Amino acid sequence: MTRLAVLGCGRAGLMHAGNIAAHPRAVLAGVHDIAASAAENAAHALGARIFGSAGEALASPDVDAVVIASATATHCDYIEAAVEAGKPVLCEKPLDVSLERVELCRRRIGDTDLPIMLGFMRRFDAGHRAARQALLDGEIGELHQVVITSRDPCLSSDAYIETSGGIFRDMTIHDFDLARFMLGEEVVSVFATGSRLVDPPLMERCGDYDTAAAVLTTGSGKQAIIVNSREAAYGYDQRVELFGSRGMALSDNPRENAMTRHVRGATNVSAPLLHFFVERYRAAFVAEIRSFVDAVEGSAPVEVGFEDGRLALVLADAAFRSVAEGRTVAVAEIAQGPTGGLR
Amino acid sequence: MTRLAVLGCGRAGLMHAGNIAAHPRAVLAGVHDIAASAAENAAHALGARIFGSAGEALASPDVDAVVIASATATHCDYIEAAVEAGKPVLCEKPLDVSLERVELCRRRIGDTDLPIMLGFMRRFDAGHRAARQALLDGEIGELHQVVITSRDPCLSSDAYIETSGGIFRDMTIHDFDLARFMLGEEVVSVFATGSRLVDPPLMERCGDYDTAAAVLTTGSGKQAIIVNSREAAYGYDQRVELFGSRGMALSDNPRENAMTRHVRGATNVSAPLLHFFVERYRAAFVAEIRSFVDAVEGSAPVEVGFEDGRLALVLADAAFRSVAEGRTVAVAEIAQGPTGGLR
Amino acid sequence: MTRLAVLGCGRAGLMHAGNIAAHPRAVLAGVHDIAASAAENAAHALGARIFGSAGEALASPDVDAVVIASATATHCDYIEAAVEAGKPVLCEKPLDVSLERVELCRRRIGDTDLPIMLGFMRRFDAGHRAARQALLDGEIGELHQVVITSRDPCLSSDAYIETSGGIFRDMTIHDFDLARFMLGEEVVSVFATGSRLVDPPLMERCGDYDTAAAVLTTGSGKQAIIVNSREAAYGYDQRVELFGSRGMALSDNPRENAMTRHVRGATNVSAPLLHFFVERYRAAFVAEIRSFVDAVEGSAPVEVGFEDGRLALVLADAAFRSVAEGRTVAVAEIAQGPTGGLR
Amino acid sequence: MTRLAVLGCGRAGLMHAGNIAAHPRAVLAGVHDIAASAAENAAHALGARIFGSAGEALASPDVDAVVIASATATHCDYIEAAVEAGKPVLCEKPLDVSLERVELCRRRIGDTDLPIMLGFMRRFDAGHRAARQALLDGEIGELHQVVITSRDPCLSSDAYIETSGGIFRDMTIHDFDLARFMLGEEVVSVFATGSRLVDPPLMERCGDYDTAAAVLTTGSGKQAIIVNSREAAYGYDQRVELFGSRGMALSDNPRENAMTRHVRGATNVSAPLLHFFVERYRAAFVAEIRSFVDAVEGSAPVEVGFEDGRLALVLADAAFRSVAEGRTVAVAEIAQGPTGGLR
Repeated sequence: MTRLAVLGCGRAGLMHAGNIAAHPRAVLAGVHDIAASAAENAAHALGARIFGSAGEALASPDVDAVVIASATATHCDYIEAAVEAGKPVLCEKPLDVSLERVELCRRRIGDTDLPIMLGFMRRFDAGHRAARQALLDGEIGELHQVVITSRDPCLSSDAYIETSGGIFRDMTIHDFDLARFMLGEEVVSVFATGSRLVDPPLMERCGDYDTAAAVLTTGSGKQAIIVNSREAAYGYDQRVELFGSRGMALSDNPRENAMTRHVRGATNVSAPLLHFFVERYRAAFVAEIRSFVDAVEGSAPVEVGFEDGRLALVLADAAFRSVAEGRTVAVAEIAQGPTGGLR
Repeated sequence: MTRLAVLGCGRAGLMHAGNIAAHPRAVLAGVHDIAASAAENAAHALGARIFGSAGEALASPDVDAVVIASATATHCDYIEAAVEAGKPVLCEKPLDVSLERVELCRRRIGDTDLPIMLGFMRRFDAGHRAARQALLDGEIGELHQVVITSRDPCLSSDAYIETSGGIFRDMTIHDFDLARFMLGEEVVSVFATGSRLVDPPLMERCGDYDTAAAVLTTGSGKQAIIVNSREAAYGYDQRVELFGSRGMALSDNPRENAMTRHVRGATNVSAPLLHFFVERYRAAFVAEIRSFVDAVEGSAPVEVGFEDGRLALVLADAAFRSVAEGRTVAVAEIAQGPTGGLR
Repeated sequence: MTRLAVLGCGRAGLMHAGNIAAHPRAVLAGVHDIAASAAENAAHALGARIFGSAGEALASPDVDAVVIASATATHCDYIEAAVEAGKPVLCEKPLDVSLERVELCRRRIGDTDLPIMLGFMRRFDAGHRAARQALLDGEIGELHQVVITSRDPCLSSDAYIETSGGIFRDMTIHDFDLARFMLGEEVVSVFATGSRLVDPPLMERCGDYDTAAAVLTTGSGKQAIIVNSREAAYGYDQRVELFGSRGMALSDNPRENAMTRHVRGATNVSAPLLHFFVERYRAAFVAEIRSFVDAVEGSAPVEVGFEDGRLALVLADAAFRSVAEGRTVAVAEIAQGPTGGLR
Repeated sequence: MTRLAVLGCGRAGLMHAGNIAAHPRAVLAGVHDIAASAAENAAHALGARIFGSAGEALASPDVDAVVIASATATHCDYIEAAVEAGKPVLCEKPLDVSLERVELCRRRIGDTDLPIMLGFMRRFDAGHRAARQALLDGEIGELHQVVITSRDPCLSSDAYIETSGGIFRDMTIHDFDLARFMLGEEVVSVFATGSRLVDPPLMERCGDYDTAAAVLTTGSGKQAIIVNSREAAYGYDQRVELFGSRGMALSDNPRENAMTRHVRGATNVSAPLLHFFVERYRAAFVAEIRSFVDAVEGSAPVEVGFEDGRLALVLADAAFRSVAEGRTVAVAEIAQGPTGGLR
């Protein structure tokens, strides 16, 4: 059995802890949270031990690997400590809001052979994966365009938005990774635009955007078009369209059930969309933990790694610079100069 | 140009007259209605001549063929007169509410070579036809079951219901014909049941039913299941399902447009169904006139003939007897004894 | 924790055992199967104890309740033994192929207060339940018609078919129960018809049918129309339509994912249907165990009981008699005379 | 009756001529094409007179108004001549490939009161219009994003591509107009990107693109995202999504019929998309002629005018400059300096 500790017992951490407990070959070795009550909650619900600190968890001989679901600012510190302790890591996105910090982390852990996995769970979604499989199977020919619609059901709290690193680092980062996953070749340039339509005062205050679009281009000219909003009244809208030379694969929003209502003036009324990421990607999160356990056991490679996390952040930085400067930004520019981003 | 007269200028007659006027090789030679104002309306709208009587229309050297859209009780009389006048006929369903009258008509016109076509427009619907084509093309293998859902959007007027001949002769008769069209072999037995749920007092008074189901079986055991209601709040519901040994073809309800709305609590909200037969089968009625003109011109055989009209009525009579006697009725029984039906 | 033993370790038993093991307040106390290897398989996979006999399981002080998933012929014996041992029961359908045996069982256990639950898992399906909820919420008005399409993906083995009790007792029995669940009032008459189209020689030999339709009517005239086949090439087809005075609720087939493909000549190509009952009703089976555990704990009433199992079998017997005699059979007839059924 | 002449008898001209002939209050006064055989074809098919030149048609006292469906290079000349002759115009898009020519035309006809209508037929599509109506009715709240997917079924001929003015002036111009129609306020900046993926050699040769994306922004920050390809293997893909503060309206691709096939491995297989603009926008073209006739009769204002044609071209020019310079282009820049565009 693989023994996993979870650092951070918020919404994501709790879910990971539950998925670990339900995994047939994994055990929840313990949890940690800087808020004692959050850790106690999780420990009580799942019958797990509480670690007094991240360091205690990492040092424990009863812990084989860790899941980092704590605040973003701690991610790189914990990854470095885990690598030092020789423990594989599954880390929630983003690696950090600062690309410099991430590059420092990369230098520090650079040559490790330990599995370092990034929590881009959308790669594990059944529909998105089926679309990619159709592409890999040649059913839609050569890929030309990826269109990703990604809208949250509602604005997060002001506090969250303020420390999120901005829409491209916090929310679009999933779409950047998904675009890379689908495109099958690296993005070389980024255009992005942002608007303030959902909550203009908050967005002004944070220097952030609630409505955004981005166009990524690869070396061979493949395009990824990303459409974002921080608030869709009809729910968490997650669609991916792969358009190729011989057809299109469209991963649409699944629903809780397949019941439709037909009444005067409205037919085919379907169930609401699944509420948010916990519900929408429930099975994907389970598959992600399964993939991580496989990687820790050494039976499969890491499916999405540190470098994927770093490159998604590079695209986010490019997007912020694109908005600021009103131009297409070459990905190569980002590695060198200081990154743009939130005021 | 083929010159067609229309007898009867109600809803159906007016529509046929318009479709004739728009046909590239047909001309509306004139109209007749026992209500002078109805005839004047039609004549005015379409710039056509008024005939003072059906006989006048049939006798006119300017009329090549007639469309009978008058009251059901006149259908057989007009067909007989048209045959005597040597004029091809397109007659609205049903031929009559009395099978005896129809059989008398058959004997009288029995050996005519003139095109006598029945107005079962559903055979000309693009979706239903595409389903049948999938069957003919072998895409769904051997046919096992036909499931027809057919619900009107609202009760007709009391007066109409009272003289309609009952639900099986008035409404289900379309489904009986469609079942025969799809089954590709003759029905040998009929089971039917009727309920009074939409307007029980009216149905009691007329000895009729507003909610019905029927199961038809062919000699080889193929089944047709028919589901009827005289009132569907969400609109005119017309679906046909062909189930075979290798698959299923499903002709669903088309809609006016492909726009869907997605709001809080309700996603994928589609347009209402097309209101009623005039709207739902608009293109089918046009194709029906086209088919009739082809038959009159001699360039194509009659696609749905007098015998189809008689056999649909036989199934309706069998259905009424089945309800009355609570048993499966062999189609062979109907040809011989007196028919059951409405009190 | 509620300790449950599972009798019978075939496909259904194994699944129940797994669901019990995953239930937060239940424990798999052990398993039994007359085939030792089947029991060992299950015991090994789930880390459970093996009982040498059903009696041993029922007598064990470590067992609070039992799930009966053994051969149909043992169901009533085990139910009687469980009641004698004071252990609540969840029993797979059908109770028996013989209504006499079921009525004898009823007399024997008649006044027990123990929870006796029937395994009609379709009542727990999210889509079917959402349709019923729409009805209960008044969204579709007064119920007029229930239309159930239920087709298996492929013929079971000859051996299974031969001892199944016939299509109405083996397969349609689920639809009879679902119809009762939806109708909300008792069925008073049954019409059914059966054909041999999928495998005529096998069906002839067994006196059974592979293609069937049934029409049930309640006292107030509500209709339930059931459409069955033992083999649908496109998969396990499970649809329920509730048609009422103000609208329709349609529980359609869910799919594994919401990905569609669009290629030359074919658009909107969706995933195959979920393979069979284990996949299609996976969540329903989990909800069923949850409901049973609630009933054993005394925190909720039994949602579907012995009498539901008996009445579904009465409808199956009525259906066989209807086919044999070509007439509508009153449910009241079945309680009295000898039942019809398979030759 | 309004008497209309059609200048140009290619695919579009023929269609307009047929729609005019079928209009209840319009008459096809005659046709003209520089290729005599094309004019003869049209004249023969519709029983219309042939004009030897555009001038002859415009000078004829039997012509009340003209439809210009000739080569793009003639559009402005014919518009100017028509205005001089006092004849209202319906002109196909684009007005010209050169914005300078269009601005010259505008100056020349600037103060005319004659109806000058642009052939942006997508504004008349039932689905797109229903989506816009949902917006106007407040059903989706304040508009935030318009997402337009517009893909042709196949590359046009090399000759056509070479003189088309480039993808943004030839194809995207419809989407620019549709975006303006939906946004309800003017676009202030344009970003666009183009790739050569369908036929790289041809596109290189023409300096054109076959795969494109554009992002338009209005003064208040509303976004329109346009996704284009010159070749979609699955057919003419035309979708419009309006996303607002309270919901989304999605105008999806209609199909020829609502029949779906369900076979082993593929369910819900729908009909192919309607082939191309003639089929997809058949009803829209009819509505467009109806709108033009209303405007000529004076009973309704011009729904889409010269200025709409000019502004769509401004956006196309901005798009070409954006691609060339890799930056967001302000619409205000285009009015002043020389336009970018095809090499």
